[in-house]
Amino acid sequence: MNHRRSTDVGQEMYGWLKDLFPIARSITGPGVRESLAYLRRLIPDLVVHDVSSGTQVFDWTVPDEWTIRDAYIADEAGNRVVDFRKNNLHVVGYSEPVNAWMDLEDLEENLYSLPDQPDAIPYVTSYYARNWGFCLTHNQRKALSSGRYHVIIDSDLKPGILNYGELIIPGETREEVFLSTYICHPSMANNELSGPVVTAALARWLQEISSRRYTYRIIFIPETIGSIAYLSYNLAHLQKNVVAGFNITCVGDDRCFSFLPSRMGNTISDDVARHVLHHMDKSFRSYTWLDRGSDERQYCAPGVDLPIATIMRSKYGEYPEYHTSLDNLELVTPKGLEGGYTALRHSIETLEQNAIPRTKVLCEPQLGKRGLYPSISQKGSADHVKAMMDLISYADGSCSLLEIAIRINKPFWELIPLVNELVKNNVLETSFVAGEEL
Amino acid sequence: MNHRRSTDVGQEMYGWLKDLFPIARSITGPGVRESLAYLRRLIPDLVVHDVSSGTQVFDWTVPDEWTIRDAYIADEAGNRVVDFRKNNLHVVGYSEPVNAWMDLEDLEENLYSLPDQPDAIPYVTSYYARNWGFCLTHNQRKALSSGRYHVIIDSDLKPGILNYGELIIPGETREEVFLSTYICHPSMANNELSGPVVTAALARWLQEISSRRYTYRIIFIPETIGSIAYLSYNLAHLQKNVVAGFNITCVGDDRCFSFLPSRMGNTISDDVARHVLHHMDKSFRSYTWLDRGSDERQYCAPGVDLPIATIMRSKYGEYPEYHTSLDNLELVTPKGLEGGYTALRHSIETLEQNAIPRTKVLCEPQLGKRGLYPSISQKGSADHVKAMMDLISYADGSCSLLEIAIRINKPFWELIPLVNELVKNNVLETSFVAGEEL
Amino acid sequence: MNHRRSTDVGQEMYGWLKDLFPIARSITGPGVRESLAYLRRLIPDLVVHDVSSGTQVFDWTVPDEWTIRDAYIADEAGNRVVDFRKNNLHVVGYSEPVNAWMDLEDLEENLYSLPDQPDAIPYVTSYYARNWGFCLTHNQRKALSSGRYHVIIDSDLKPGILNYGELIIPGETREEVFLSTYICHPSMANNELSGPVVTAALARWLQEISSRRYTYRIIFIPETIGSIAYLSYNLAHLQKNVVAGFNITCVGDDRCFSFLPSRMGNTISDDVARHVLHHMDKSFRSYTWLDRGSDERQYCAPGVDLPIATIMRSKYGEYPEYHTSLDNLELVTPKGLEGGYTALRHSIETLEQNAIPRTKVLCEPQLGKRGLYPSISQKGSADHVKAMMDLISYADGSCSLLEIAIRINKPFWELIPLVNELVKNNVLETSFVAGEEL
Repeated sequence: MNHRRSTDVGQEMYGWLKDLFPIARSITGPGVRESLAYLRRLIPDLVVHDVSSGTQVFDWTVPDEWTIRDAYIADEAGNRVVDFRKNNLHVVGYSEPVNAWMDLEDLEENLYSLPDQPDAIPYVTSYYARNWGFCLTHNQRKALSSGRYHVIIDSDLKPGILNYGELIIPGETREEVFLSTYICHPSMANNELSGPVVTAALARWLQEISSRRYTYRIIFIPETIGSIAYLSYNLAHLQKNVVAGFNITCVGDDRCFSFLPSRMGNTISDDVARHVLHHMDKSFRSYTWLDRGSDERQYCAPGVDLPIATIMRSKYGEYPEYHTSLDNLELVTPKGLEGGYTALRHSIETLEQNAIPRTKVLCEPQLGKRGLYPSISQKGSADHVKAMMDLISYADGSCSLLEIAIRINKPFWELIPLVNELVKNNVLETSFVAGEEL
Repeated sequence: MNHRRSTDVGQEMYGWLKDLFPIARSITGPGVRESLAYLRRLIPDLVVHDVSSGTQVFDWTVPDEWTIRDAYIADEAGNRVVDFRKNNLHVVGYSEPVNAWMDLEDLEENLYSLPDQPDAIPYVTSYYARNWGFCLTHNQRKALSSGRYHVIIDSDLKPGILNYGELIIPGETREEVFLSTYICHPSMANNELSGPVVTAALARWLQEISSRRYTYRIIFIPETIGSIAYLSYNLAHLQKNVVAGFNITCVGDDRCFSFLPSRMGNTISDDVARHVLHHMDKSFRSYTWLDRGSDERQYCAPGVDLPIATIMRSKYGEYPEYHTSLDNLELVTPKGLEGGYTALRHSIETLEQNAIPRTKVLCEPQLGKRGLYPSISQKGSADHVKAMMDLISYADGSCSLLEIAIRINKPFWELIPLVNELVKNNVLETSFVAGEEL
Repeated sequence: MNHRRSTDVGQEMYGWLKDLFPIARSITGPGVRESLAYLRRLIPDLVVHDVSSGTQVFDWTVPDEWTIRDAYIADEAGNRVVDFRKNNLHVVGYSEPVNAWMDLEDLEENLYSLPDQPDAIPYVTSYYARNWGFCLTHNQRKALSSGRYHVIIDSDLKPGILNYGELIIPGETREEVFLSTYICHPSMANNELSGPVVTAALARWLQEISSRRYTYRIIFIPETIGSIAYLSYNLAHLQKNVVAGFNITCVGDDRCFSFLPSRMGNTISDDVARHVLHHMDKSFRSYTWLDRGSDERQYCAPGVDLPIATIMRSKYGEYPEYHTSLDNLELVTPKGLEGGYTALRHSIETLEQNAIPRTKVLCEPQLGKRGLYPSISQKGSADHVKAMMDLISYADGSCSLLEIAIRINKPFWELIPLVNELVKNNVLETSFVAGEEL
């Protein structure tokens, strides 16, 4: 597989993220379409689908489409004291149109701020109950003097469509690796723009490589309603074909790595993710299913049960800037994005190459006659072939390379060159469980 | 189920215990019958059975019946220096009749005292080898001057009967929950009178409630020989019908909670007991099968293997007053008894309601449209529905409510109202594994 | 089984070890034959086999036979500054003949010493690539002045034979316990002479005892090539018959005990070894398969998979004197050898007596009527029958005595007299899984 310089990838993704950052996304509306259009320029094969408002998708109904053009609170002098044009978090997502004068006292119940984070604008939405409101920093709020204010929300809430993007990259078999990320949050960087840009970079890499064992199904959806809609149309196909996958979110800051398992925590995706993170960051944070909060809630729901795990940097809900205006272009860095990308790419490479090796000789092979072993046996001299011998010693045909890598506590990606050398020297053979050819 | 005020229950049980305390019980004889008669006044459906002396019950033979009327050691002046009428622990259980004058020197070998607990009268018995003796405090013993003493034990040891009480409370199915407690110890409070009084209170509660899924088989027996005799008559029935049960002993002091598992520790009774105790007392003491010492020795013996676990306050053999006159009405308290009662009642309620829930919707249900979810999504606002969502997320039809309660670390009894609400809202359905109807 | 005084066994083994110590062993040649001849005087039934040089054994070829007669480095004055006659470690194993004058500078690349252990002569070999060299202490090396040296290695390297010894001690069944030790190292004591002398003592003990459930297959082989050759001739037989076994090495010092498992760590040999070591030395060192380094590499290789575990004192590779001249007659002691012997003998006795006990009575047996229980029940009086009752309580026919010993945390060898007493008293019966009779 071909490797572009990782610093390039980090910078490239950061550039896309900066471009996408200002767009006023929500679960429906022009912001999503504008974002998908940008992504299509990066991945021209991306297909944009739409679902009509009112469509029943399992237990849910696709809501009306929301268009937001402007929103502000102006004082009696006409000064915009809270202004959507300065930060699109200022308006509660899915706010209905408002044009009214009111006293501060009455306005208060539609204001949202965080006393503990007085410089942060919170992110608030009300998708399924008609409502309106403004989010502002607590310092802004405290500075409001009593008096009358002009409240304007220039929005539409009416039947329309919900959009999502889908990309299929065919591989040698019909078995699929499923990657899902979301595109419904306004100007926040780690949650969520890191997800779409890392996913876009992975898609570009997957399209470049010469061969893929698996078919890749990659979707860019609004969170929750999007994944539910997607599942409602594709569940049978996904349950038949998907062998592994990841929900890609919060992969952009550079504080730590985090892991959130599938519902039962026992899929190949879980094993791969734990292995990769263990070797990238010995102290990565391991959460449980009880800490879930993103689209794994749908993908791993009872009766859906797709093998989807989640690799993150700082997990949603766990870092102070989460769902506020402080989740910005400083929190996310090229290096942070590159770490998220690398962890997912290692995971995909592990899935692709996770063959079952089997030794072709009984007893230990004589590595010396193959030039793979030092001819002089002196105290300590055999250390550098230990990984090779350990690998062979578990190559009994009962376990995969990943299982062996876990047992001998070596990164999967360091074993691949050893396997290749041993196969070339007729010591090992490898096989995949057969997948149906495409 | 109906709830009487727990302080009432504690006081009520403590009152019964005080009434039963003075009776000179042993494994046979008038003391057992008097105690069973008292219990029949509390639970009129209690049936008293008898087994003749000499009856072979598995490896054991029911011993002769023992009647004790009086016992004392008098000095030459006729003063009773050790007197059964002051404390029925003073005579060794199953002492044969004695009427003799003897020197202190000769008397010594039939005296039992505890040098480390000089104010405690030990509890000593000799059921299966003819013997006699007196138990006294070490201080009493040290005060005995040399000289001659008149030793009187006015007892009978002759063929008669062994008694036990049995109560069947029918439920909707033939499947049985088995509760066993013992009534063979003279004046000691935690071990054993706490057992019969808590069991009597549970029986009265079970008779009051409107419906019972299970049939309840409740026995009051002399320890060891009684449980062996009961098993010898009922083993096939018990093995066919008993699905869970508890040996009820040492449930009256208020120092701690204790758990002793079944032989393999893997029955539903074990799971329920561990769960209930974990949520009533995070630091409850968990013993192993190697620490056993009561009738679980018979109920869980190889080839018997009933699913019986033991929930206790301070475990027999582990508290300093055990098997002495210090295990008295001060050691046991209304609050202590109420704790024992509550732990067992929670356990029984858990068994009764341990259905298998299954979600009726694919993906997450939309709780909002059912009024079960806050309509505004703000940082932290979803916390109070977390238990409900966690419950649903495991309701895949593969695991019971108890298993879910353990996974999500919530008390079973806090999940029941959530389940009821979700069933009412058509989100969940529940089912029991079918039991044969009565 | 008969017990000779353990101090005698320790001294006897130490005496044999001293006799064998000076012999210049290698994987082939006169040193091996001389050592096997000595062992045949201890165990006359030992059969010595030979395999011709050039024979293909799995992935390996039996090498030429090596004879070493003399080897030295002399200075220009004819003084032997490095002399094989002083210590046979001075010559690199399998050195080809040399007779040459050379400058110190040129000689250097054929010298081996250990800067960190300046008084130790390292042990170096080159079996499968033609080479020659001298090993010396680092202090010796530093003392060499520049100038010309006469280098003499008087050796042969030519087609011959590889020898090994094999002893079969028949038992009541065809099922075999396999013991393997190696005889290819020159003058070193813990690794390896402790192995052959402890194995010889075990063989003599096994031949003396009156009955053996298992047949014992005991081999003395050169390490690696010897075990591979032996497996290549006997694999089918071994896989059919061997039920347990041990690789016997490093059993002579008295610092600690060590355990190295089979490849999967789940054979009866592993269970027995862990149990015996736990009760001989609570802090024994437990290694993993990744720490392997002796013939278990062949016996447990994928596709071979014999149930072979390793019990050691200080493990090869882990003690500072390993593979140097400091692994000498001071490192190994009679007491150390006796400890290794005892651990292996306990292991073999455990295998021999590991029956499945089953209680013959339902509920607890009445030990009292059999004189196995104190007739007076007083606080604490029942403690001494606890092990007996625990054993009975697990004798449900589903688990072996070893499994019970592990559960109740008592040494297997302390349970045997209890089992015998309970069988005599008709409380227990025991059975072995049938093995094919010899």
